[in-house]
Amino acid sequence: MAAGRGALVRLDFTGCLDGRVGRAGLSRDEIRRGCRRAAGGLKRLPRALDAGRSGFAAILDDRAAAAASVREGQRLGSLADTLVVDGIGGSALGALALQTALRPKGRRLVILDNVDPESVKARLASLDPKRTAVNVITKSGSTAETMTNLLVLLDWMERRFGPSHVERWSATTDPAKGDLLVLARRLGMPTLAVPPNVGGRFSVLTAVGLVPAAFLGIDVGELLAGARAMRAHCWSARPEANVGVLGAVLLFLMATKRRRSIQVLMPYADALVHLADWYRQLWAESLGKRVDRRGGVVETGQTPVTALGATDQHSQVQLYMEGPHDKVVTFLELRAFREAVKIPRRHGDLASLGYLGGRTLAELLTAEKRGTEIALTAAGRPNFTYLVPRISAHTLGQLIYLFEFQTALSGELYGIDAFDQPGVEAGKVAAYALMGRKGYEKEARRLRRELKRPRAVV
Amino acid sequence: MAAGRGALVRLDFTGCLDGRVGRAGLSRDEIRRGCRRAAGGLKRLPRALDAGRSGFAAILDDRAAAAASVREGQRLGSLADTLVVDGIGGSALGALALQTALRPKGRRLVILDNVDPESVKARLASLDPKRTAVNVITKSGSTAETMTNLLVLLDWMERRFGPSHVERWSATTDPAKGDLLVLARRLGMPTLAVPPNVGGRFSVLTAVGLVPAAFLGIDVGELLAGARAMRAHCWSARPEANVGVLGAVLLFLMATKRRRSIQVLMPYADALVHLADWYRQLWAESLGKRVDRRGGVVETGQTPVTALGATDQHSQVQLYMEGPHDKVVTFLELRAFREAVKIPRRHGDLASLGYLGGRTLAELLTAEKRGTEIALTAAGRPNFTYLVPRISAHTLGQLIYLFEFQTALSGELYGIDAFDQPGVEAGKVAAYALMGRKGYEKEARRLRRELKRPRAVV
Repeated sequence: MAAGRGALVRLDFTGCLDGRVGRAGLSRDEIRRGCRRAAGGLKRLPRALDAGRSGFAAILDDRAAAAASVREGQRLGSLADTLVVDGIGGSALGALALQTALRPKGRRLVILDNVDPESVKARLASLDPKRTAVNVITKSGSTAETMTNLLVLLDWMERRFGPSHVERWSATTDPAKGDLLVLARRLGMPTLAVPPNVGGRFSVLTAVGLVPAAFLGIDVGELLAGARAMRAHCWSARPEANVGVLGAVLLFLMATKRRRSIQVLMPYADALVHLADWYRQLWAESLGKRVDRRGGVVETGQTPVTALGATDQHSQVQLYMEGPHDKVVTFLELRAFREAVKIPRRHGDLASLGYLGGRTLAELLTAEKRGTEIALTAAGRPNFTYLVPRISAHTLGQLIYLFEFQTALSGELYGIDAFDQPGVEAGKVAAYALMGRKGYEKEARRLRRELKRPRAVV
Repeated sequence: MAAGRGALVRLDFTGCLDGRVGRAGLSRDEIRRGCRRAAGGLKRLPRALDAGRSGFAAILDDRAAAAASVREGQRLGSLADTLVVDGIGGSALGALALQTALRPKGRRLVILDNVDPESVKARLASLDPKRTAVNVITKSGSTAETMTNLLVLLDWMERRFGPSHVERWSATTDPAKGDLLVLARRLGMPTLAVPPNVGGRFSVLTAVGLVPAAFLGIDVGELLAGARAMRAHCWSARPEANVGVLGAVLLFLMATKRRRSIQVLMPYADALVHLADWYRQLWAESLGKRVDRRGGVVETGQTPVTALGATDQHSQVQLYMEGPHDKVVTFLELRAFREAVKIPRRHGDLASLGYLGGRTLAELLTAEKRGTEIALTAAGRPNFTYLVPRISAHTLGQLIYLFEFQTALSGELYGIDAFDQPGVEAGKVAAYALMGRKGYEKEARRLRRELKRPRAVV
């Protein structure tokens, strides 16, 4: 089990081979052809990145930006042990994933990523103002939920500290424009930059994730070293021995050649549940796209579903085993845990206890994972496994980069733009109009007419 | 907004009508025919229930059982303010849903629903033994994860209390058989019964959910009254005005006539996130089935996906708006919140703040929901909304019964058994074999051969 600090995440795709999983599986030759096709994407992707479409790979080299984030996180950490993260989607999920995985001691994040009055009130009530700092994060500088909670928090802090509360704040936003930037400058709040060419869901390794990480005491150097190690692997290993390329190719072939419209990401580790939530945004928002092509409109996007092993064996696995053949299951398996818990030997005369005594929780959890994998494979349900050496800042950095790379490469395979999100605009506009925002009067009139039409309610 | 205590959950299906959502929608006539078809299921279902296939509807009349659960929950509550729930799947999700929704003060559940050594150790470390009681819950009395944590907890409690710790325990299991029953009797632990004909995922309104609920101080009488009120509605209202029947019919038609293989359940309320997780098990495990029919094997089951509004507008809605036409979105909308938070008027000169000041969080959250609904409908994406008067024990009881009824009725519409889960057996057997459980030697030999085959790993 012992693996060096720098050991990389590996990929076991036995459960995708036709020799094991039957007709839902892929032949070695099919995979080889898929990898050759990916080689084209691997050429287009760096061109897209170099042309400025995304900076997710390049940011790992901006050591000055990382150092500034670490300093700011540490500064906030010198004032408080609780950091309120006022952000939503890509501005919250990465920091939450890091906290849950790396379980820092003595410090915590309180995430305000919704505008539910019940939970906002409860979360504020749980705070001791004297031990609290705030990091407000929105790239556009105008996200409705984030700006709302900003107003609530400004008021809440000022009542307790007067004008001096500004030192307890940090704003992460576009370096050149947006209302948050204007407001932060007006109030004298420190600001950190989200690079303009790094979208929210690809931004965890910018100030967006690194300020909270440094606040928590997470080793940011290790996190970035892990990401760089995975970057080196993804950009240099030959496609068929490349975890990033092969993972993207397997998912692409499963989606397009085997009608697997759903990808289940199932870590067997409580520490990785929020990494799975982060991934769910990355995959859904990047690849769920409507594009006009010669011959008509194409709508792409495998639906990501998160599940937790072993818990969801008792909730979702019945469906995965017997339901429609529309899923590919991707496991995350830990090769070593940070804690050992031995199962006490007691009441061994009872059949359902005797075999457990003397074993460890890790042995049981791993057996459950293997058992599920074996059963799915035997039932003709394709699956593969990311083998994660252990949970550490280094492996988290690896997984973050790996999934970002796979997602970006998948965009090339599908021939879509993985870095935009035009589909969320219509809902935003409608909400603005309903809230009476200036400039949306015409839409508001249209909606009032729409809302006057009779509704079907029982 | 004011609605009486007993106001029922309603269903707004405007977003499913072809006049609004286009060709993905259903005509009034199609819905009428679906309801007529459901009338057949509505006749078969009570016969199935009367024949003993499930007691989920009848348990609401067993007031003696409910009273016994309340007494036991209160007894544990007199000894402790933290209740460890050692259970998995249907033995944990219901109690968690109730706690999250009803936010009891001064008491909490710690759920042990996995065998991850890192989180088990962390959760044990968070407990003050003198303030802790344990409710171990497994209907079969032999669930591997639950029995494992039972051994760990027995040891942990005994080290702190000696033999007297038994008074701090309660066991919920089959009333007549199973290792947990034997063990509880051996140790002198009180036991409560899971009715043999009520499966885990339908058991939240038995001792399985009611003991933890009573421990938390939740009004169990109101919870059951809500469930009974919804039962009366579901079994008496004519199909087209019946929230339970209409919901099941819409989902069935969307799945079978409009190829909506995914159902997204999206509450706009943090309080309902775990109710959504509970629902996810109920729907997936009940309807994900492989059945032999004349003409071949049929594999049924819409995949349930949970999302949270407004948060997941920034994660999943891009995919729902532009991705494949394979989803139906079901919203849960609260008509009133238990808290009001006004958005302070500040910096109103900035465009992204000015329209917010003076409004409330509830107004914004509701506008976000309506905006998303309007945008999805305009994009041809079918959706409907459960209108929930407010969060209370009564409405939680209603929702629980409503979803159980819909699931059971859907089983009749699909012509499958909604109450079994044969697909999880193979994985369990493999895990037992890998753990060296007695009686599984033959399977273990087979697996050893299987595991010796070369694997594909990069």
